[in-house]
Amino acid sequence: MSTLIRGGTVVTSEMTYRADVYCEDGLIKAIGKDLEVPSGAEVVDAGGQYVMPGGIDPHTHMQLPFMGTVASEDFETGTAAAAAGGTTQIIDFVIPDPEEPLMEAYQKWRGWAEKSVADYSFHVAVTWWDDTVHRDMGILAEQEGINSFKHFMAYKNAIMVSDEMMIASFSRCRELGAMATVHAENGEMVYHLQQEMLKKGITGPEGHPQSRPPEVEGEAANRAIRTAQVLQTPIYVVHVSCKESLEAITRARQEGQRVFGECLAGHLLIDDSVYYNDDFEFAAAHVMSPPFRPKDHQRALWRGLQSGNLQTTATDHCCFCAPQKAAGRDDFTLIPNGTSGVEDRMSVLWHHGVNTGKLTINEFVKITSTNAAQIFNIHPRKGSITIGADADIVVWDPEKTRTISAKTHFQNVDFNIFENMETRGNPSHTISQGNVVFKDGQLNVVKGAGRYIKRPTFNTHFAALEKRRAETAPRKVNRAAQAAE
Amino acid sequence: MSTLIRGGTVVTSEMTYRADVYCEDGLIKAIGKDLEVPSGAEVVDAGGQYVMPGGIDPHTHMQLPFMGTVASEDFETGTAAAAAGGTTQIIDFVIPDPEEPLMEAYQKWRGWAEKSVADYSFHVAVTWWDDTVHRDMGILAEQEGINSFKHFMAYKNAIMVSDEMMIASFSRCRELGAMATVHAENGEMVYHLQQEMLKKGITGPEGHPQSRPPEVEGEAANRAIRTAQVLQTPIYVVHVSCKESLEAITRARQEGQRVFGECLAGHLLIDDSVYYNDDFEFAAAHVMSPPFRPKDHQRALWRGLQSGNLQTTATDHCCFCAPQKAAGRDDFTLIPNGTSGVEDRMSVLWHHGVNTGKLTINEFVKITSTNAAQIFNIHPRKGSITIGADADIVVWDPEKTRTISAKTHFQNVDFNIFENMETRGNPSHTISQGNVVFKDGQLNVVKGAGRYIKRPTFNTHFAALEKRRAETAPRKVNRAAQAAE
Amino acid sequence: MSTLIRGGTVVTSEMTYRADVYCEDGLIKAIGKDLEVPSGAEVVDAGGQYVMPGGIDPHTHMQLPFMGTVASEDFETGTAAAAAGGTTQIIDFVIPDPEEPLMEAYQKWRGWAEKSVADYSFHVAVTWWDDTVHRDMGILAEQEGINSFKHFMAYKNAIMVSDEMMIASFSRCRELGAMATVHAENGEMVYHLQQEMLKKGITGPEGHPQSRPPEVEGEAANRAIRTAQVLQTPIYVVHVSCKESLEAITRARQEGQRVFGECLAGHLLIDDSVYYNDDFEFAAAHVMSPPFRPKDHQRALWRGLQSGNLQTTATDHCCFCAPQKAAGRDDFTLIPNGTSGVEDRMSVLWHHGVNTGKLTINEFVKITSTNAAQIFNIHPRKGSITIGADADIVVWDPEKTRTISAKTHFQNVDFNIFENMETRGNPSHTISQGNVVFKDGQLNVVKGAGRYIKRPTFNTHFAALEKRRAETAPRKVNRAAQAAE
Amino acid sequence: MSTLIRGGTVVTSEMTYRADVYCEDGLIKAIGKDLEVPSGAEVVDAGGQYVMPGGIDPHTHMQLPFMGTVASEDFETGTAAAAAGGTTQIIDFVIPDPEEPLMEAYQKWRGWAEKSVADYSFHVAVTWWDDTVHRDMGILAEQEGINSFKHFMAYKNAIMVSDEMMIASFSRCRELGAMATVHAENGEMVYHLQQEMLKKGITGPEGHPQSRPPEVEGEAANRAIRTAQVLQTPIYVVHVSCKESLEAITRARQEGQRVFGECLAGHLLIDDSVYYNDDFEFAAAHVMSPPFRPKDHQRALWRGLQSGNLQTTATDHCCFCAPQKAAGRDDFTLIPNGTSGVEDRMSVLWHHGVNTGKLTINEFVKITSTNAAQIFNIHPRKGSITIGADADIVVWDPEKTRTISAKTHFQNVDFNIFENMETRGNPSHTISQGNVVFKDGQLNVVKGAGRYIKRPTFNTHFAALEKRRAETAPRKVNRAAQAAE
Repeated sequence: MSTLIRGGTVVTSEMTYRADVYCEDGLIKAIGKDLEVPSGAEVVDAGGQYVMPGGIDPHTHMQLPFMGTVASEDFETGTAAAAAGGTTQIIDFVIPDPEEPLMEAYQKWRGWAEKSVADYSFHVAVTWWDDTVHRDMGILAEQEGINSFKHFMAYKNAIMVSDEMMIASFSRCRELGAMATVHAENGEMVYHLQQEMLKKGITGPEGHPQSRPPEVEGEAANRAIRTAQVLQTPIYVVHVSCKESLEAITRARQEGQRVFGECLAGHLLIDDSVYYNDDFEFAAAHVMSPPFRPKDHQRALWRGLQSGNLQTTATDHCCFCAPQKAAGRDDFTLIPNGTSGVEDRMSVLWHHGVNTGKLTINEFVKITSTNAAQIFNIHPRKGSITIGADADIVVWDPEKTRTISAKTHFQNVDFNIFENMETRGNPSHTISQGNVVFKDGQLNVVKGAGRYIKRPTFNTHFAALEKRRAETAPRKVNRAAQAAE
Repeated sequence: MSTLIRGGTVVTSEMTYRADVYCEDGLIKAIGKDLEVPSGAEVVDAGGQYVMPGGIDPHTHMQLPFMGTVASEDFETGTAAAAAGGTTQIIDFVIPDPEEPLMEAYQKWRGWAEKSVADYSFHVAVTWWDDTVHRDMGILAEQEGINSFKHFMAYKNAIMVSDEMMIASFSRCRELGAMATVHAENGEMVYHLQQEMLKKGITGPEGHPQSRPPEVEGEAANRAIRTAQVLQTPIYVVHVSCKESLEAITRARQEGQRVFGECLAGHLLIDDSVYYNDDFEFAAAHVMSPPFRPKDHQRALWRGLQSGNLQTTATDHCCFCAPQKAAGRDDFTLIPNGTSGVEDRMSVLWHHGVNTGKLTINEFVKITSTNAAQIFNIHPRKGSITIGADADIVVWDPEKTRTISAKTHFQNVDFNIFENMETRGNPSHTISQGNVVFKDGQLNVVKGAGRYIKRPTFNTHFAALEKRRAETAPRKVNRAAQAAE
Repeated sequence: MSTLIRGGTVVTSEMTYRADVYCEDGLIKAIGKDLEVPSGAEVVDAGGQYVMPGGIDPHTHMQLPFMGTVASEDFETGTAAAAAGGTTQIIDFVIPDPEEPLMEAYQKWRGWAEKSVADYSFHVAVTWWDDTVHRDMGILAEQEGINSFKHFMAYKNAIMVSDEMMIASFSRCRELGAMATVHAENGEMVYHLQQEMLKKGITGPEGHPQSRPPEVEGEAANRAIRTAQVLQTPIYVVHVSCKESLEAITRARQEGQRVFGECLAGHLLIDDSVYYNDDFEFAAAHVMSPPFRPKDHQRALWRGLQSGNLQTTATDHCCFCAPQKAAGRDDFTLIPNGTSGVEDRMSVLWHHGVNTGKLTINEFVKITSTNAAQIFNIHPRKGSITIGADADIVVWDPEKTRTISAKTHFQNVDFNIFENMETRGNPSHTISQGNVVFKDGQLNVVKGAGRYIKRPTFNTHFAALEKRRAETAPRKVNRAAQAAE
Repeated sequence: MSTLIRGGTVVTSEMTYRADVYCEDGLIKAIGKDLEVPSGAEVVDAGGQYVMPGGIDPHTHMQLPFMGTVASEDFETGTAAAAAGGTTQIIDFVIPDPEEPLMEAYQKWRGWAEKSVADYSFHVAVTWWDDTVHRDMGILAEQEGINSFKHFMAYKNAIMVSDEMMIASFSRCRELGAMATVHAENGEMVYHLQQEMLKKGITGPEGHPQSRPPEVEGEAANRAIRTAQVLQTPIYVVHVSCKESLEAITRARQEGQRVFGECLAGHLLIDDSVYYNDDFEFAAAHVMSPPFRPKDHQRALWRGLQSGNLQTTATDHCCFCAPQKAAGRDDFTLIPNGTSGVEDRMSVLWHHGVNTGKLTINEFVKITSTNAAQIFNIHPRKGSITIGADADIVVWDPEKTRTISAKTHFQNVDFNIFENMETRGNPSHTISQGNVVFKDGQLNVVKGAGRYIKRPTFNTHFAALEKRRAETAPRKVNRAAQAAE
């Protein structure tokens, strides 16, 4: 099982150079000019194309049970659609119900994911708190390769965490060397505004953005970040959708805090006018949280990527079809939240990022792959083109065009938020574990070929924080000496 | 009963001019050059001195029951000490216990305050929530002249409000045209850090600032401000002590939000080194919340006053003597929180503000009197030198010096945080309701002469916000029309 | 000659109250409830209306010789049009040609202005430098009531100052206690971009905004402000049109610097799309510098007024008719720069500011009158409703509507940038020097009735800065002592 | 000629892993676990140590003729001292006198540098302007491998550029694909303040920082950055020493601008108190521009490195001995500006950056080597550990301590600004072009072994900007169509 990618231009987060790449046994075995073709190797002719680390989507929800239904895209179809778009790994979420033991939920999701066609990892959500949660976080981190725990600050009366729980869990993350991640929206405020909307008779999808204004996200992001600052633990804010939360991140980063921010392809390209469309199905299909925002927020998010204040891009891929969305026809708070994108992310970001000069090609690799791998500590195995790394690679044709449509996409959902968008810059080949799983517009995937990728705790940022903690430890009780300082 | 202030320079928040001021029946009756001396009028010779609106301290706690004891300064001694320092009105706080009916607490405080020697008003704290609280806020606002309600975001397991309660109460404030005010510290975080300190064996006063770092204040200030922003209600942040909360205020003000900030004389002048003093009594005497901060925060607060991002100065005057402070000898969390200052505020601000060129004399009047009167809607009755206004006036001698000391101050407490500070610029005469109540360093006050000053709701900022709300009301359900925009 | 304004609501920058206002001999003589009508007094019935200080427009250019032509509006027609809009004083500019003695230019302008119907003052521009300029600035400040000097950072090869000249002149302003003011655009950059445009064949009015992008203004504002900071002199930035310069001001103010910013009614309400109109006359009629900006800058400017980071509003009233604008038909750099507005400012600001809730009525008075009077040191004579002040008053009917049009306006120009705008809120009476000069839509003015108003140097901000300078004087040569600190 | 580095931990800007590194013919030939030792290879035992790209110091001035004297450190001694500290390449400056042809100056510096013991490149300064300068910039960029041009905004009457020249040269840089770099201080202001100081009799070294306050740097940085923004060219600000210029960079980066910032080891660690030392020699030895700053600026610079707003570290190594510094004994403006550091930079940054937890080890590599290589377009040949790269490597012993002293350093100067500083973390071996040139505290260098490294134009940032320029090209003259948009 070997593959030679010949004649391409390797693009990593740091450099660009002409080289062939040879893969064997699922790994990158050689990088160099004019490599010989081993017998039996499949040859991919990458002339004039870019050879980049396969995309990593650090935020998906395959077959998620949510709001009374289950996401239509499962791990098999979802990882396949990802591969068609050049993404070779997802990081999905284990989300226990309140009171549900973490280990049970974890095993359930592991089972669901076995049919994946490409590699995957999991974040685990902390949705409730007692000593068993504290204990299970330890087991997950130390034995199961979970190095990130998610906290929902929204969804009151469901999976929302209180500040007290957030403090407890962040502290535990710090002990374990795991990244705390947050969905930042002030859930109390959202709940209050939803009730206000319904009281006023606003029941349609336009009530969705109106009950989740940007300030509500900015506040929560700031709260989580400052909590992490005091507890001296790194933090990652998922789906930053607006200026307000970006500014919270930017402020903290300028102070040297270890804060990371993710944004979604959808939030970069779609604005809130969709919610005012007369067609309920169209409007409801766009309902996700946080909602799409007015255009000036999109400009801000691009700047966040350019300046490095946002590091990763994702999709929050979570698919519900029209009949599912219809549950909220008379009450927008009942519309299942979620949109697709795992297949389209790389292409729309290239088209609107690289083709416009907003991003360099190296920055493109950073924000679609390498940064996620580094932050979640699977680099350089993932997110790099280095010898010994997993052979998860996308061969990218900067001239290939595609018109996105739900009619033709591989995603298992009846709607596409990028419908009719034409992108220039698309994968010609996707290589997963050394195998060509997508070429000539066709998938060639194997159910179950995807592997669960463990992610070790304690990345380099933790090591630095440990030193800093030692340096800034609370001053001792000897007041006299201190006063004399 | 009449008084003529002759030969002085009138200084208001807006202008400076030579004029005599004539007071009769407690009111300013005439302002002009070379006024005749009515027969029987007491003449105050203000040659070379400034004639300014009497100070207003919008944040005091006379005889407050708190942390198992009662503040040593009562309404009589407290308002007298204020007068000695040039302050002619305080706004104190009614603080119901959780579950205590608001009206009962209010009547209790009204009774305590009857012995005051100068005028006073009350803010009322919302420390719990149910329908009766909602109702009583209405009675207080509509019948009792209460136009501001306080919310403690700290003091967990005591008077702390949850976000849910804060949202309910802010909404009620908006309905009533009352100002929401907040003590901004993240109480969950403070509680967590206190437990951490005690676990580590840090039991002395140095544990106090370490468990209440600036981030904890900044986070809470931002949370309250953004909550107010979404609910479209004005908000006032008490005792801003650090850059972090000042920045939260500044950001919001730059966006046009109606946010106000108060800072304390102590926070402007004293730094956190006091908590590391070997002498427990000295350190404990400085324990208040938020704590004194490192010096760079003081620079920031002065800049806040200069730029107008902070509008008022206060003291949070809340006195506990050494035996009371001793309750926390083995556990800093038990030290009653509070320091004095109502007598010293005007003088220390003049000395460190005006004498250094940080503030103009008109700005001094703004931040010690006029702004508080305007924000709390008792202007121009208070905080102005205008015909018909209450004759609450301070005659200020810019050359008079005083060395502050607990041995000589009028305040009923055994400690002074400004001990040994020499100030140039002090009141020569204080006039309350037209009577000279302080001159030649002597008080001449009458117990019970102070009056309760009602404060009407709905100031000019509310009127503006109402218009804005009408302009920005959530868009209607007719999506087709909107999409066409 | 006396006038009684009866039954109105007095609105000042600080308060709102019901009172009659009595004027005699050009001054306000009494303010109070139910004043008696002196015999012979003209009675203005202000029932239901607001009685406010007359507007001050601190930035006009009547009959300015500029770019080869002369502004069509002269001091007589201009001050009359101002009165029709509720503005009772203008501050115009003396602009010497390079090499022209300042005193000569000053006398020339004084002569032109004698026909004014309402009061006026002058700023004097420093457009070149030698010892005589240094000397004449002193004469103007000490004898002629000039307390502000203007510096054009744009208009290369004409009136632009170099940094070296700006430093010399700012230093001289500081010595004299005069305010430095700047037109902030980087003139070298504008010149370069103009040449680039013309090279590319862009000769139409759209070249105007493209050669003066916001960065060019922001840079110059920052440069001037930082220069003033180092030299410790107050500074006033005229016609702030964009976020970039507003941010420069805001940053400096947050640091406590004495910086002031003015914005124009036009910049608050008109965007840059006007320059792309197919009709040359329409586009050219909008050519002024700095140009109108994209809409998000307008939002920022309103926030600047709300937050107090901008203090004044003006118009830069400088009228050129279509035949004059036609000079630049083939080369946009030759279109005379300027638009009208002195008549419309108060009304459009009320409509778009107060009616929308962006501004309170007191803030309206601040930004249209009082702040300008204070900054340029003619307060409380101007910009206030106080006894002894000049009786320059506008009676404002908040319900009166008007549709703005060049066909009906009093301004002597054939175009109105607010054409067809309907405003609710307009003057019912304008009173200048105690005389009703406008009522029922009719002017009743007297040529030459306007007086030159001297403005003394050294306002309160200078006094504060002097103290600060003393405090922060460069440290002495005794290095040993200092090192020991 | 081959070397095997065995048993170390490779640290790059992106990752950390155990591997041996094999070098041959000056290049890295193999990276892997347990590489075999080729016969004849020198083996470096790196057990427990880090193997990192050799440092790049992008800002040195060897044997610079300046202020009437010549820097004491020449290219031979300077590159040797660099090697002793782990730095394997410098980028020095060609600085023509005004009117001196660029090519002549360039050839002169090339000649001087031939004796270097390690690799070097040059920036070329633009100190005057005419058509020949324009032409020679093209020759240098296209034929001589110069891709960065320096502009001094200070040093009036010597090498300072005017804004007009800066615009011309930045435009030329853009055409050529070369980086514009600036020394950001407002030279007019510095000159003015120097004269003020001397007039006041302040002639000692304390006049140096007082005549170059931070605002003067911040203003110039902002001016250069905004000029580059308008001209759409990348820009690099050398020796950022204060908050003010860092903020100018940060603001621009947040807007997506391609701006880069360098800071010096000295500015990170030394404060301005040195200038007040009683000992003239001590104080004068610290005179450099911009000067050392108060401590809070140092905190800001570290945060700039942490947040990525500053990308590189350098030294501005420019050595003058006591007799040279003595030229300014009676007039601080005559003290030759410059301090040393090329030998110490890596070690002091490790000690104060990595050991304190401020920086991760990967960030250390970024800011000492990789970022400079990328920005100046010699990556991955320099600044990387990749196969085919130049074998410029430092083996870093994190436990090795050293006490810095002028008595023991290799630098050819009689003073060390880090005198007596003990650092933990020092090079055990430095490898240049595959040869061990420093080990066991001993240099083993060869005069003339250093090569001139050409740097090609047009890095990835330019490519992105070209696309952006095409997207945002000035709108065409067809106004009708545009207005309809």
